Amino acid sequence: MSYAMEKLREEKVFKDPVHRYIHVRDRVIWDLVGTKEFQRLRRIKQLGTTFLTFHGAEHSRFSHSLGVYEIVRRIVDDVFKGRQEWDESDRLLSLCAALLHDLGHGPFSHAFEKVFQFDHEYFTQAIIMGDTEVNQVLRLVSADFPKKVAEVIAKTSEKKLVISLISSQIDADRMDYLLRDAYFTGVSYGHFDMERILRVMRPKEDQVVFKKSGMHAVEDYIMSRYQMYWQVYFHPVSRSGEVILQKILHRAKELHEQFYHFKHEPKHFVTLFEGKPKLKDYLELDESVVLYYFHVWQEEDDPILKDLCYRFLNRHLFKYIEFDPATEYKKYMKLVTLFTDAGINPEYYLVLDSSSDLPYDFYRPGEEEERLPIQLSMSNGEIRELSRQSEIVEAISGKRRTDHKLYFPLDLLKDESTKKNEKRQIKELLGING
Amino acid sequence: MSYAMEKLREEKVFKDPVHRYIHVRDRVIWDLVGTKEFQRLRRIKQLGTTFLTFHGAEHSRFSHSLGVYEIVRRIVDDVFKGRQEWDESDRLLSLCAALLHDLGHGPFSHAFEKVFQFDHEYFTQAIIMGDTEVNQVLRLVSADFPKKVAEVIAKTSEKKLVISLISSQIDADRMDYLLRDAYFTGVSYGHFDMERILRVMRPKEDQVVFKKSGMHAVEDYIMSRYQMYWQVYFHPVSRSGEVILQKILHRAKELHEQFYHFKHEPKHFVTLFEGKPKLKDYLELDESVVLYYFHVWQEEDDPILKDLCYRFLNRHLFKYIEFDPATEYKKYMKLVTLFTDAGINPEYYLVLDSSSDLPYDFYRPGEEEERLPIQLSMSNGEIRELSRQSEIVEAISGKRRTDHKLYFPLDLLKDESTKKNEKRQIKELLGING
Amino acid sequence: MSYAMEKLREEKVFKDPVHRYIHVRDRVIWDLVGTKEFQRLRRIKQLGTTFLTFHGAEHSRFSHSLGVYEIVRRIVDDVFKGRQEWDESDRLLSLCAALLHDLGHGPFSHAFEKVFQFDHEYFTQAIIMGDTEVNQVLRLVSADFPKKVAEVIAKTSEKKLVISLISSQIDADRMDYLLRDAYFTGVSYGHFDMERILRVMRPKEDQVVFKKSGMHAVEDYIMSRYQMYWQVYFHPVSRSGEVILQKILHRAKELHEQFYHFKHEPKHFVTLFEGKPKLKDYLELDESVVLYYFHVWQEEDDPILKDLCYRFLNRHLFKYIEFDPATEYKKYMKLVTLFTDAGINPEYYLVLDSSSDLPYDFYRPGEEEERLPIQLSMSNGEIRELSRQSEIVEAISGKRRTDHKLYFPLDLLKDESTKKNEKRQIKELLGING
Amino acid sequence: MSYAMEKLREEKVFKDPVHRYIHVRDRVIWDLVGTKEFQRLRRIKQLGTTFLTFHGAEHSRFSHSLGVYEIVRRIVDDVFKGRQEWDESDRLLSLCAALLHDLGHGPFSHAFEKVFQFDHEYFTQAIIMGDTEVNQVLRLVSADFPKKVAEVIAKTSEKKLVISLISSQIDADRMDYLLRDAYFTGVSYGHFDMERILRVMRPKEDQVVFKKSGMHAVEDYIMSRYQMYWQVYFHPVSRSGEVILQKILHRAKELHEQFYHFKHEPKHFVTLFEGKPKLKDYLELDESVVLYYFHVWQEEDDPILKDLCYRFLNRHLFKYIEFDPATEYKKYMKLVTLFTDAGINPEYYLVLDSSSDLPYDFYRPGEEEERLPIQLSMSNGEIRELSRQSEIVEAISGKRRTDHKLYFPLDLLKDESTKKNEKRQIKELLGING
Repeated sequence: MSYAMEKLREEKVFKDPVHRYIHVRDRVIWDLVGTKEFQRLRRIKQLGTTFLTFHGAEHSRFSHSLGVYEIVRRIVDDVFKGRQEWDESDRLLSLCAALLHDLGHGPFSHAFEKVFQFDHEYFTQAIIMGDTEVNQVLRLVSADFPKKVAEVIAKTSEKKLVISLISSQIDADRMDYLLRDAYFTGVSYGHFDMERILRVMRPKEDQVVFKKSGMHAVEDYIMSRYQMYWQVYFHPVSRSGEVILQKILHRAKELHEQFYHFKHEPKHFVTLFEGKPKLKDYLELDESVVLYYFHVWQEEDDPILKDLCYRFLNRHLFKYIEFDPATEYKKYMKLVTLFTDAGINPEYYLVLDSSSDLPYDFYRPGEEEERLPIQLSMSNGEIRELSRQSEIVEAISGKRRTDHKLYFPLDLLKDESTKKNEKRQIKELLGING
Repeated sequence: MSYAMEKLREEKVFKDPVHRYIHVRDRVIWDLVGTKEFQRLRRIKQLGTTFLTFHGAEHSRFSHSLGVYEIVRRIVDDVFKGRQEWDESDRLLSLCAALLHDLGHGPFSHAFEKVFQFDHEYFTQAIIMGDTEVNQVLRLVSADFPKKVAEVIAKTSEKKLVISLISSQIDADRMDYLLRDAYFTGVSYGHFDMERILRVMRPKEDQVVFKKSGMHAVEDYIMSRYQMYWQVYFHPVSRSGEVILQKILHRAKELHEQFYHFKHEPKHFVTLFEGKPKLKDYLELDESVVLYYFHVWQEEDDPILKDLCYRFLNRHLFKYIEFDPATEYKKYMKLVTLFTDAGINPEYYLVLDSSSDLPYDFYRPGEEEERLPIQLSMSNGEIRELSRQSEIVEAISGKRRTDHKLYFPLDLLKDESTKKNEKRQIKELLGING
Repeated sequence: MSYAMEKLREEKVFKDPVHRYIHVRDRVIWDLVGTKEFQRLRRIKQLGTTFLTFHGAEHSRFSHSLGVYEIVRRIVDDVFKGRQEWDESDRLLSLCAALLHDLGHGPFSHAFEKVFQFDHEYFTQAIIMGDTEVNQVLRLVSADFPKKVAEVIAKTSEKKLVISLISSQIDADRMDYLLRDAYFTGVSYGHFDMERILRVMRPKEDQVVFKKSGMHAVEDYIMSRYQMYWQVYFHPVSRSGEVILQKILHRAKELHEQFYHFKHEPKHFVTLFEGKPKLKDYLELDESVVLYYFHVWQEEDDPILKDLCYRFLNRHLFKYIEFDPATEYKKYMKLVTLFTDAGINPEYYLVLDSSSDLPYDFYRPGEEEERLPIQLSMSNGEIRELSRQSEIVEAISGKRRTDHKLYFPLDLLKDESTKKNEKRQIKELLGING
Repeated sequence: MSYAMEKLREEKVFKDPVHRYIHVRDRVIWDLVGTKEFQRLRRIKQLGTTFLTFHGAEHSRFSHSLGVYEIVRRIVDDVFKGRQEWDESDRLLSLCAALLHDLGHGPFSHAFEKVFQFDHEYFTQAIIMGDTEVNQVLRLVSADFPKKVAEVIAKTSEKKLVISLISSQIDADRMDYLLRDAYFTGVSYGHFDMERILRVMRPKEDQVVFKKSGMHAVEDYIMSRYQMYWQVYFHPVSRSGEVILQKILHRAKELHEQFYHFKHEPKHFVTLFEGKPKLKDYLELDESVVLYYFHVWQEEDDPILKDLCYRFLNRHLFKYIEFDPATEYKKYMKLVTLFTDAGINPEYYLVLDSSSDLPYDFYRPGEEEERLPIQLSMSNGEIRELSRQSEIVEAISGKRRTDHKLYFPLDLLKDESTKKNEKRQIKELLGING
C-alpha cells in the first residue's frame, strides 16, 4: 500500500479536554506528530501572555494544532465524505494542512514578529519546504506534497475549498481556538454548538457553505468570537505583559546594536537581532529558551533590560489608562517630556498600545484585507451571504472596534524620593491620585 | 487597622476553570500572591511529565496553590465560621498555609528529589523562614507568624485541626488536585461532589470530621482518587518521560563528578550536584531553566547525555513491559549483561520503575507512615472511622497496589546494523517481535 | 422569635441541576414550598409544548420557581447585604415574591390564556390574597404581608428596587429560565456567566444597576436570550403543538356552547368555558387533568375534537410554511375557500401563527409596553443606559423581529381518496409536492 | 429497496442533553418513534416518584428509550461494523430491541407491578406481538420480525450477543439511565466515560467483551451504578412516595372488591383490580390518567383513600426510621397493636420497606438470578472475568447490601387531640421526641 493510504494497525487516540478524543488512523498524521518541529509546539503557549491574567491559559500550540486537525478530520470523514462536490483525494491534504498550519509560530509570536519584523507564516512555509523532519515525512507521500500543503496554508493553492476549511471567517482554526481558549481560561464565553455547525457544512466549488438551518449556531459562533476578543484576547492586563515583552526584545536588540557587553551573550537571538533569522536558529527558539534569557538578564548591568525582565518574570506589570492618540496627542508629547525629565525613559516606560477587531465582514473587493464572507445555502438552493439573512450579524457587520491604552509603571511614579515635582505633574496628567 | 486584618478596598477575583472564581479580600493573601517566590510557581508544571501523555496537563502549581487556598477559604468562611469548635483566630493561618503549602516545589520535583536526594518540604520551610519576599510579608503579620505557618505545613504545629485542613486523607490539597488534574487532562475520572463534602465538614478538637449524611460523597472522592492514580498519575508513558528525566539528571551529575568538560556549564545545577543546594540557587531553578539546559545539552559530546536530552524534548520515549522484580531477577541480570554486550549502557537504558498506592487506610499506629483516618460524625454524635461504616471503603482499605515496569529504548534494539545477535536475544527475553 | 425571622434548625437543600443546590434557611420559605398551591406547580411544565420538539424539556414550573428564589437569595444575601442602598427589611419580601411569582400559572398557560382570555397574573394575585394555604403562611408574617408580596409581583408596589429583581429586562426570572431551559433542552445557547452578573449587581434607589466591568456578561445574557427565543421558544414544531392545543380548547368550548352532549362531561372546564373561572376551580386544573380529558375525548363523537386530541397526544402535528399575512391575504382567503370545499374546516385546520420578539429595548416613555432599560454604573459613578455603551446591544436594540407561519394537516391533504382536485389546488398554493 | 434497508432522505436528529444528538437514518426507527405506543412513553416518568426528592427528575421513558437506541447505534455502526464476529444483518434487530425494550412500562411501574402482580415485560411482549401500531411497523420488515425483536427483549433469543447489548451487567440500558438520571437529578455521581467503554467493546460469539485497556472505565461505571442506587434510586424520601402510591392502589382495589361506591368510578383500573388487565386497557393508562384519579379521589368518602391521595399529590409524605425486621419483629407487632388502638390503620400507615442491591456479581450458575459476568479481553487474547482482574470490583463483588425502613405518618402521631396515650407510646417506641 502507498504511504499516503497507510493506516495504523490500531487507531491511536489523544485524550483532549475540548474534543474528548482526537483520533488518528493515518500513518502520515502519526508520523508528523512525532517530528521534532511539531513536538516543539509543546513549548510554545497558545495564548502568549494571557496566562498573566487568566492563570489557566497555559495550554500550548501543540494541543491547538491537534484540535484543528480533529475538526477537519470530522468534517471530511463524517460530513463531506461521499458528497458530490467533495473530492476524496483532497482528504490527506486537508488533514496535513490543518495539523501544520501553525507550525511556524515561535515563542510569544506577536511580540517577536512585531519587534523583529517577520511573519510566522514565512517560517511555516520554510519548515514544510526545508530540511526538516516534517518535510521528510511529507515527501514520503509524494515529491510535490510538501509544496501542496504549503500552498494551502499560504492560501495560494488553487484548492479554494480546502483553504476555506482552515482559513476563512469560520474555519477549523477559529473554532478550535475559541472553544479551547474558553476551556482553559474558564470563561463562559466562547461556547457555541460546533457539532451543529459541522453538521450543516457543505462543500461547494470553491468554499464551504452552511445550510441555512444552522444559521443560529453560526450567529452564536460570531458572538462568541466577539466576546472572546474583548474579554480575553485584548485583556488590558495581558496586553501590559505583551508591552513589557516587546520592550525587552527591543532593548536587547538595541544593546546588541550598541555593542553592549552582555554578561550572558544572547547567542540564540543574534540572527534575529540582525534581521536575518535562519530556519535552524529559529527552530532553536522556544519559550523555555526565551524565559531562560529573561531569567539571567535580571543580572545584567543595563538597568532597563534588567528591570523589564524582572517585571515580566515576577508580574510587576505596567498600569494603564484609556488614551485616544488622535485627540490627546499634545498630552502624550508633554508626558514624553516629563518622563524624560523624571529620569524614566519614555521609549520603554510610556507605551501606547491599540487593539482592534472586526467581528465579521461581508466581502469588500479591493480592500486591504479581503475577507471571504460566510455563505448560507438556502433550502431552495440559493446561496446568500450571512449578513443579508441574519439581522444580528448585519447589525455588527463591518463595524471595526478599536481600543487604545497608555501603559506606564505606576510604582516608579509613586516613588517620590526623586523628581517629586515631575512625577506629580505626570500623575496629574494621567489622572492618578497619590 | 492591623495588617493581619486589612481588607482590600475591593475584592479581587481570579477566574479559575475549576472553582469558577477565586476570591481574595485579605491584603496578606494578595501580597503573598505577588511575591516572586509565589510567581515562580507559574513556571513549574503541576504534573511534571504527564503532559507527554495527556497534552492538556500543562497547568502550573501556581493555579493549584490558588485552588487550595480557595477551598480552605470556603471551608473557614462558609462552613466553619461561627461554629463552637472553630477558633476564628486560626483563619489567616489556615489561608496562608493553604496558599503556600507547595512553595518549595522545584521543576519536575519528583525526579529532582529522587536523584539529588532532598525533599521539597525542606525548601518550603526555607522559603517561609528565609530571606525572601514571602517571609517579609508574613512577618508583617507578626514576628512569629512565618514560624506558625511553617509548622502547619510541616505538620509539627499543635494546631491539629488546621493541619488536617491541608494534610490528611481528605484535604483541600487533594480535593483541588483531583478536580484540577481531571479538568486539564480531560479525563472523566476525578469528579466528585466537592460542594457536598465542604458542606458536611465540621471542626472537631484536633481534626476535621464529616457528617454521616455526606458519606457517599466521601466514598466517591476516594474512588476518584484511586482512578486518578492509576489512570493519570501512574500512566506508564508519563513514567517513561520521568525515567528519562531522572537519567538525564543522573548523567549530568555523574559527568560533573568526573570533571567532564561541558560545552554549556551547568552553573544552575552545581550546588545540587554537590549535594548542598542553597535556597538562593534553588529559587533560580524553574522549568524554563531546566529545559534550556536540556536544549543546549543536545549539543554535548557525551553521547548518553545528548541522546537522553534529545529523547526528552522530542518525546522519543522508552517502551516498557510488565516486569516483576521479585520473580524475574535472573532475567533482569541477564538483560543487564546483554545490554552491556550490545553496547547500550544498562544503567541508563534499562530501568525498572515501580508505582504503588494505598487508596485509603485506617489508622495503624506505629507503622511507617501513620495516616489519620477519615472520621464520620454520626447523627447521634458518635464518631466512626469511615471504613467501619462504608462497605465499599472497607473493601479497599489498607490494600496497597503496586505495579512494576521495565523501560528500554525499543528503537535502539530495532536497529540491527550492529550487535544483531545480542539485540535479538534481548528482544526475545523482553517478548518483543521484530 | 417572630415567624418572619424564624430559621430552620438545620438548613434544607434541594439538589438542583442548574444551581447545584438551593438553600433554605427561612421557615417562611420552607412552609410556602410545602403548600398545596406551590406543590401544584410540579404538575405544570415550564415550557408547555416544547417537549414535542426538545424531548428533555419536561421540567416543571416548580423547579423554575425554586431557581428564581435561589438567585434572589444569592443577590440579597451575598451581594446586597450590608450595602447602603439596600434595606435589609426588604429581604423576606424579595424572597417570597421570587418564589411565588409564577404561582398563578395553569397548565399550558399560553394556550389557555389566549383561548379563555384571562391572565395568569390575575390568579397569582388571587392565590396570594385568597383563601389558600399560601395566604395562610404569608399572613403569619403580618396581616398586610400577602398584599405586599402581591404588589411586588403585580409591579404596583412602591418598592421599585425589589420589583426590578424579579421583573425587568435582566432579572432573576429570566436568568433562571434561560439557564434552566437550556439545560433541560440540551441546547448550547442560553449559557452566560450568571455568577459574574450577580457579582456586579448593585442596589440603587429604584432599580438594580450593573457595574460597567460586567457589561460583557450582560451582553452575553442578551444574546443568549435572543438565541433561546428563536431556537427554542418559537420553534415552529412546538408552535404546531401549541396551535393544536388552542384548537382543542376552542372546539371544546364551542361544543359546550352548542349544548353538545359530551360522553365525558368537561366538568373541570365549565367555568372557564363560561368565562368566569373561580379560584377553586382554577386550582383544580393541572396538566394531568387536562391530558386526561384529551385522552378520553379521543372517544368523543365530534370528529374535530376527537381528531385534534388524537393529534396532540400522539404527536401527529400540523406542518407549516412561511406565510406573510400582509402580502398574501388573498391567497389565504383562497385557501379558506378551498379547505371548506375539500371538507376540512379551515377554522381548525388552517391556522396562521405569529411569533415576535424584541431582544432588548431602551426606554421609550409612553409606548405600549414601557420597559425599564438596563443601567450600567460607570467607574466614575455615572449611570449609563446599556445600549449607549455597548455597540453590540445598540445594534439590536429596539429591533423587533416577527415570524409568521401557516399551519395545516399535511396528512389530510395527501389523502386523495376524496376531493382530489381541491386538495391538489391547495397543495399547489401551499407549494407542496405530492 | 426493501423497507428494512430504507433510509430517510435526510438524517433526522433529536437534540438530547445526554448524548447531544440522537441520529436516525433508518425509516423503520423513525416510524417506530411515531407510533402511539411509543409516544405514550412521553407520559411516563423514567424515575417514578424520585421527582419528590430530586425535583429535576421529571424526564420520561421516551427520552431514555431514544438514548438506549442511540448507544446501540453507536456500538454497531462505529465500533462493531466490519469486525469479523459481528453479523451486520443483526443491526436492525439490535436497534429495534434497544428502542423498544421499555415499551411495556406503565405509569409508576414498580408500584403497579407490585400491587397488581404483573410484569411490565409481559406487556412489552404483548405490544410488540399484538394489534398495535408498533407491530404493524415491525411486520413491514418481515412477518417474523416482531417475534425476533420480542425474543431479544425477553432474552429467549438465540442471538446472545444482541441480548448482551441491552441486557447484561453493563449494557446500553444501564449506561443510558445512569448518565441520564444523573443529568436530570443533577447529582455528581453517575458520570463515567461512556465513550471509552464503547470504544473497547468487542463482539464475541455470545457476549460483548471489553478490551482490558478500558477496565478502569468499567470500574468507574460500576462505582457510579453503586452510588446512583444508594444516593438516588433508593432515596428514603422517594421510597416514602412509593409506599403511599402502593397503598393508594391497594386501597382502591380493596374498595372495589368490597363494592364500595366510588363517586368517581375507576373505569381505567377495573381490569387491573380484577387481575386480568387487557392490552387495550393497559395502553390507556399513563401518568396523567393515574394522577387524574388521585386528584378526584381526594373527594371520596373513604377517609383512607382520600387522605393517601391528598398526601401523594401535595407531598405530605410518611416519615421513617431504620428498622430491622429480623431482630425487631416483636416491636413491630407491638406497633401494629398500638396503631390499631390509636385508630390509625396499620395496614396503610405502618409500612416496612426494604431496598437491596448487588453492585456486581460474577457468575453463579444455578442461583436464582443468573447474571452474566463482565468479561475482559486481555492483550494476549485470553478472556478474564472482571472481578478476577480488578481488585476494586473483586472487593465489592457479590456483596448484597440491604436497607430496611419503617414508614409512618408523623403528623397524625403528633396530633394529640385524640388517643394521646397510645400515640405517646408509639412515639416512644419509634424513638421520636415530641
